[in-house]
This record gives sequence, structure tokens and C-alpha cells, in this order.
Amino acid sequence: MKVEIITIGDEILSGHTLNTNAAFIGKALSDLQLDVNRVCVVGDNKEDILNEFKVAFENANIVLVSGGLGPTHDDITKKCIVDFFETELVINEEVLNDIKGFFKKRNRKITQVNEDQALVPVGAKVIRNSQGTAPGIWIEKDKKVFVSMPGVPHEMRTMMEDSVIPMLQDMLPEKKVIRKVFSLLTNGIGESTLFEKLGNLDELLDGSKMAFLPNQFGVKMRMTIHGKDDEEITNKKSEIEQKIRTLVGRYIYGKDEELLEEVVAKLLIERGLTVSVAESCTGGLISARLTNVSGSSAFYERGLITYSNGAKYELLHVSEDIIANKGAVSLDVAQQMANSVRSISGTDIGLSATGIMGPTGATQDKPIGTVYIGLADDKVCTAKEFHFGDDRLLNKDRTSQAALEMLRRYLLGIPYDE
Amino acid sequence: MKVEIITIGDEILSGHTLNTNAAFIGKALSDLQLDVNRVCVVGDNKEDILNEFKVAFENANIVLVSGGLGPTHDDITKKCIVDFFETELVINEEVLNDIKGFFKKRNRKITQVNEDQALVPVGAKVIRNSQGTAPGIWIEKDKKVFVSMPGVPHEMRTMMEDSVIPMLQDMLPEKKVIRKVFSLLTNGIGESTLFEKLGNLDELLDGSKMAFLPNQFGVKMRMTIHGKDDEEITNKKSEIEQKIRTLVGRYIYGKDEELLEEVVAKLLIERGLTVSVAESCTGGLISARLTNVSGSSAFYERGLITYSNGAKYELLHVSEDIIANKGAVSLDVAQQMANSVRSISGTDIGLSATGIMGPTGATQDKPIGTVYIGLADDKVCTAKEFHFGDDRLLNKDRTSQAALEMLRRYLLGIPYDE
Repeated sequence: MKVEIITIGDEILSGHTLNTNAAFIGKALSDLQLDVNRVCVVGDNKEDILNEFKVAFENANIVLVSGGLGPTHDDITKKCIVDFFETELVINEEVLNDIKGFFKKRNRKITQVNEDQALVPVGAKVIRNSQGTAPGIWIEKDKKVFVSMPGVPHEMRTMMEDSVIPMLQDMLPEKKVIRKVFSLLTNGIGESTLFEKLGNLDELLDGSKMAFLPNQFGVKMRMTIHGKDDEEITNKKSEIEQKIRTLVGRYIYGKDEELLEEVVAKLLIERGLTVSVAESCTGGLISARLTNVSGSSAFYERGLITYSNGAKYELLHVSEDIIANKGAVSLDVAQQMANSVRSISGTDIGLSATGIMGPTGATQDKPIGTVYIGLADDKVCTAKEFHFGDDRLLNKDRTSQAALEMLRRYLLGIPYDE
Repeated sequence: MKVEIITIGDEILSGHTLNTNAAFIGKALSDLQLDVNRVCVVGDNKEDILNEFKVAFENANIVLVSGGLGPTHDDITKKCIVDFFETELVINEEVLNDIKGFFKKRNRKITQVNEDQALVPVGAKVIRNSQGTAPGIWIEKDKKVFVSMPGVPHEMRTMMEDSVIPMLQDMLPEKKVIRKVFSLLTNGIGESTLFEKLGNLDELLDGSKMAFLPNQFGVKMRMTIHGKDDEEITNKKSEIEQKIRTLVGRYIYGKDEELLEEVVAKLLIERGLTVSVAESCTGGLISARLTNVSGSSAFYERGLITYSNGAKYELLHVSEDIIANKGAVSLDVAQQMANSVRSISGTDIGLSATGIMGPTGATQDKPIGTVYIGLADDKVCTAKEFHFGDDRLLNKDRTSQAALEMLRRYLLGIPYDE
């Protein structure tokens, strides 16, 4: 079964937009045990698009296209599909209703170019677009499948997840040897330390493969495991995971695509605990991440972003003496912030962060990247010092991740030390 | 002059690695006024690579390849080049010296596979690699150019900048016509309304090209302008920009890669104004974005994330009656939040957001995506209703963007209505 991906758009060719759509589709197909043979990018140009349709449809059994389905002049994919499959466009009433509903919900006036998006090729299956107005198009011919999806990433992603992946699954035969990819996510340990603590990798993995992928949220260990069926893979996976957890378990906060805020949210809800957050250097990022989790009102009560010293005094009663003597970026201030926000809000836990994100604000003894994170409950109040890098936005990410990781370890009773 | 890019690597096809190399090369060529016709990705597979070499070398005048030059078993680009150009490999002494030096400097033992990296095809120009051990390869044949570079991003980038771009520049004729890309960024107007308000695009653009690129932060209008020199392009650009601003100027918040928070920060600093933020549904995101801007302490004072109703009463003195009668998600509450946070913090402006981000929380008359944003100064306090989509995280982005856009228009005295 050969698969090809075509992404359409001048902005990808010129490098102004990264081809995240091809990566998303590639990953989704990989999960279906389908290997992508080729990815092609062409511009908003009829001749090039038609030429690529021809090559891909000759080479492959499945062709997935994204881009060029919008309402404006530069969106010509639908015209190319009509030419390529020698068909014509008709209005699809269901899609037209979807589009009208979409505009009505947003209180926006519908225009002719929007209504024209309900035109679909005769003979095609229509894939509804729950996130936008351009429907997807599924055409089967010569026992091959051709799918066209919008290029707006979240529209394409939802369409893949809700429709295209299940439809592809239905048509695929069962595989003899399958493979699965799984990841363990760590925070608070460097790539090389992790590598050393794991010891002999060949022995540990016994034929499976591992890659270390570090970024500002930690180090991901990605493993690829082969087997003749789900059971064999599940067994191999458990065995490897168990060995790894024995060696570096305390640093592992999650699996696969899990986010640390989701892991923490689950623990808080399970334990029936609430949290409030006092943020200085992160400027609301810790709270924004906790409230990204649906249902966060069960555990997240409030947040105080005390950016100025005045706000630290007024809202959190941080001692002026301590700020004068130790500085607003200090272990003591982080502790006072965590303790105050907890008692003011009446939550079980208080979490805080103060630090120097850069590029300005460094002092003689506190370089850019110096961060203090505090955590308080009704009995103890601790704080910890961190040293991150030079990049302001990466430092905000790293600080929010370290704060959530401190909270996770607190909830699980794991000591925080590397 | 047609150009094609080939990137080689299974990890790109499977979506585990984003194709940043193709984007980097595309941008570099774009700066040389060269249009990329096609980008292709193939796996570490001889047949696929050779097939792609053939297609690309037939179609294009310049083919740039990255990937597959490493020392291990899965790096087969060099073998494919030898086959495709019917040549053979010889040791290049300069490259061998580079490699030996590379290992000596790092105190690492050199192995046979490393020394083999000094093998280059007969008839090729060698491109030295200052960042690693695999040399680049430049082959000219039938008045066409074929360039092969390593896939490690920083090695490829340095090689492009130090060698490949200057070499391409030398062989390109002086351009009679050059071109530049520029973008205008809008918020608070849909793609199709924008398209309609611009009227006759051919007349407006007079030969230049425009693409509409929508996402949750608004719609980007990206234009490509051609001219015989910088002056002509600058003139055309001003003329088009002026026409567009006359038609839809109020919706345009920035240019090119600018972020709305940067635009707002600049305006606040210029005017010497301060802001405080009261957030419910956005959970700190508006504040996190404002404090992403370096120097934000000049205008950002504090933020109150009043997620629970209790926090709204205690911190912002929002009336319990109004919450009971109108709901926490209402125009009145947004106004009270903006007004309170401003007066409590003593800032010039107060900004607020309350809404239903989903997936839960919808009521009979307030579906998911219903949002109220408030803005207060010492004289007036306004609020506005918005209707966004179904996706929680996109809704948070959209709400934070709309709040910042309301602030921008307030600062510039532009009324907020679509």
C-alpha cells in the first residue's frame, strides 16, 4: 500500500510557512501502520498541481492532499480536482447548511464566495468540516483513494481525526508484522544524564529502537517496537517501560502526547485538591497552562500575576524588607508568594515563580535564567532555585514546566532533586 | 530558472521531524529571487531517491538536496549520486584533513566510516563542511546544477550561507526584475469579508500577487511584488499598502512577522500608559502574551485571574446579583471586571475577558465560544460580545487576540465593529 502526501501553497515553497500539515498527516498514517512514500509540495499553480496529482495517483494507492480549498482566488484545488477526474461541481445542500450555520453562529454575513464552498465534485464523498467552511473531498477511482482537505491546520487536523483516519482504517487489511511508537516524557534531567542512567541501551531495548528528543519541556524518549500482533508489542512495551521506570522513573511525568498540565490536573482532581498560583516572571503562563485543561475549575481557583513590586506588596503582602535585602528574585520571595496566595485564596496548595527571563534584568550574582519556584501547603513551604538559558520565551516555558513538575512530584511524594 | 528541493529521510516522511531544512532553503532562494517550483521528501531508499533525482533534474535547472550524507548505514545519498551521474568515488585529501582535524579537536578516535566521508564523486566540486564531517557536493551537467548537502540542520545552514548561496549568486545573471514579499496582518474580520471589501483585486494589485492566510490570530494578506529595482518595488508596495489601508485599514494591526502583543506594547510605551488585566476564561493567557514582550514591566502592572466566582467577588467586587441574574459570562460582568481591575491596580487601562471556552459549560442561550471582553479607562467602560468556535485552546487564542485587538483600537481611537 503506497501513500503520498501533497501539500499545496506558495507560502510553503518559499519557506514562510513550515509544512506542519505533512508532518501531522505522516504521523497519523504512521499510527495506521501506513508508510508514506513521498511528500510533495507545489505552489498555487494549476499546471503544477495537475502534474503532481497525475504522478502521485500513478505511484500511490492513497493520495492525501491539503491546501487550496479556501474561498478566495488563490484557492484552486477544487478546479484541479474537477479537471483531473473529468467531473463537475454541484451544490451539496448539507454542506450549504453547515456553512450557513457557521456564519449564523458567528453573527457574520454570508457572501457568495462562502456559499460557493458548498460546491463539490460529482461522484465524490463529502467530508464535513466542523471547524470551517471548506468541505473535504474523498474520491475513489481505479481502486485508489484521493482525499483533498483544507490547508488551515486545525481544520485539516479535525477532519483527519474525525473522518479520514476512520475511513482509511475501514478500508485497510489486517497487518502481519506491526509496529508501534511510544514515548516517555521526562522533566528535570538532562539528555546525557538520562542516557547514562539508562546504562546499556541495547540490552535494555532488546531490538527495539530509541531516540532522545530534548526541548524546553524536557527530554522525550521515543521508542519503536515491532511485533507480530498487538499482544507481543504490548508485552515488549511493558517490559521496556518497566525497566526504564526502575532506572529513571521519578523524572517521567507522562507518555506520548500527554502534557504536564494534564497530568497535574488529573492528580489534583483524583486527590480533590485545589491550587492557586502567584506568578511574577511567567506573567500568567503557569495559570494559562493549568486552565488549558478542560474541567480546570475543579482544581484551579485563582491566580495573581504580581508583576510589579507594588503588586507583590499589595496583593501578596510580600515583605518590603525582604525585597530590599534579598531582591524580588529570591528564594524568600518565592516562598512568601506561594504561602500568601494559598492563604488568601483558601486553596490546599499555593504555587509561585519569580525569576529573570531576559534579555534585560540580570544582576552581578543573578544572571539571566535565574528562577525561584515556591510551593506551599498548610504545613510546609519550600522553594527551589533553577538556572535556565538566555532566551526569554524559552525561559518562560521552562519555568512553567519546572513549576508544574514541582507540583507533580509534590502530589506524588517524589523528592525534587536531580 | 526552475528550482527543486529534495529532502531525504524517513523521519520527515513519518512526521517525527518537521521539514525545517526545506523551509530554510526555500527562504534563502526566495531572497535570491529564485522561486522554488517543488519540494519533495523521500525516504532512505535507493530506488525512491534515484527516481526523484531523475524527475527533479529533468524538470529543474537547479536541484538542492539535503540529507543522507552521514556516516551510518542508512545514509545512501552519495551512492545514489554516483549511480545517477555514472561516476565513481575518490578520496579528497583536503576533506580527509578536515575530518582528521575535526576528530583531533574533539579528542575523539577516528574510524574507517569517518574517513570514508572524504570520498567524493569524480567531477564534483567539494563544499567544505565547517560544522561536521560530511562534505557537500556540487555537480554541474547539461548546464544544470545539482547540490547535495548534509541533513543536520546547522551543518546545512552554515554550508548554504558560507558556500552554496554565494556560488549560486555567482552563476545567476543580474536580475532584470526582482521581487519582495510583504504581509499585512488583520484581526476582527473574516477572510471572505476582507476579500469583498478589497473589491477588484487585479486592479488593486496591478500585477502583484496576494494570498489570504487565515488562522486563529486573524487573516494575513501576503503580497509578492515584482519590479526592476528596490526603488520601484518600494513605490509599488507603498501604493498597494495605501490602497489597502484606505479600504480595510482599521483591521490591520501589523506587518510581516509582528505579533499583536508587540504592537500593543509599543503603543502603550509610546503613550506612557499602564494596563492591568482581569481574566476568567483565558486563565492568564492575555497577561502571558503581554509579558512575552521584553520590557513589559514599563506598561504591565498586574493581572488577576478570577477563575472562580468567589475570586470574582473577593478580588474584583463583582456584584453577586449581576452574576446571579446575568451569569458570570455576561457583558455586565466583563465591564465590572475591567473597571475593578483598573481602579484596584491604579493603572490607566483595565482589560477583561469572560467566556465559555468549551467543551463544557454551554447554556441554552450561551453556546460554547460565547465571549465578553471589557475595557475601561477613567472615563468610559465598554464591553463587546464575541462568538468563536468549539475548540477550547483555539478559543483561548482567539479571545486573547480579540482582547489585545480591542486594546489596540482603543489606543488608536479606532471604533471596534466589524
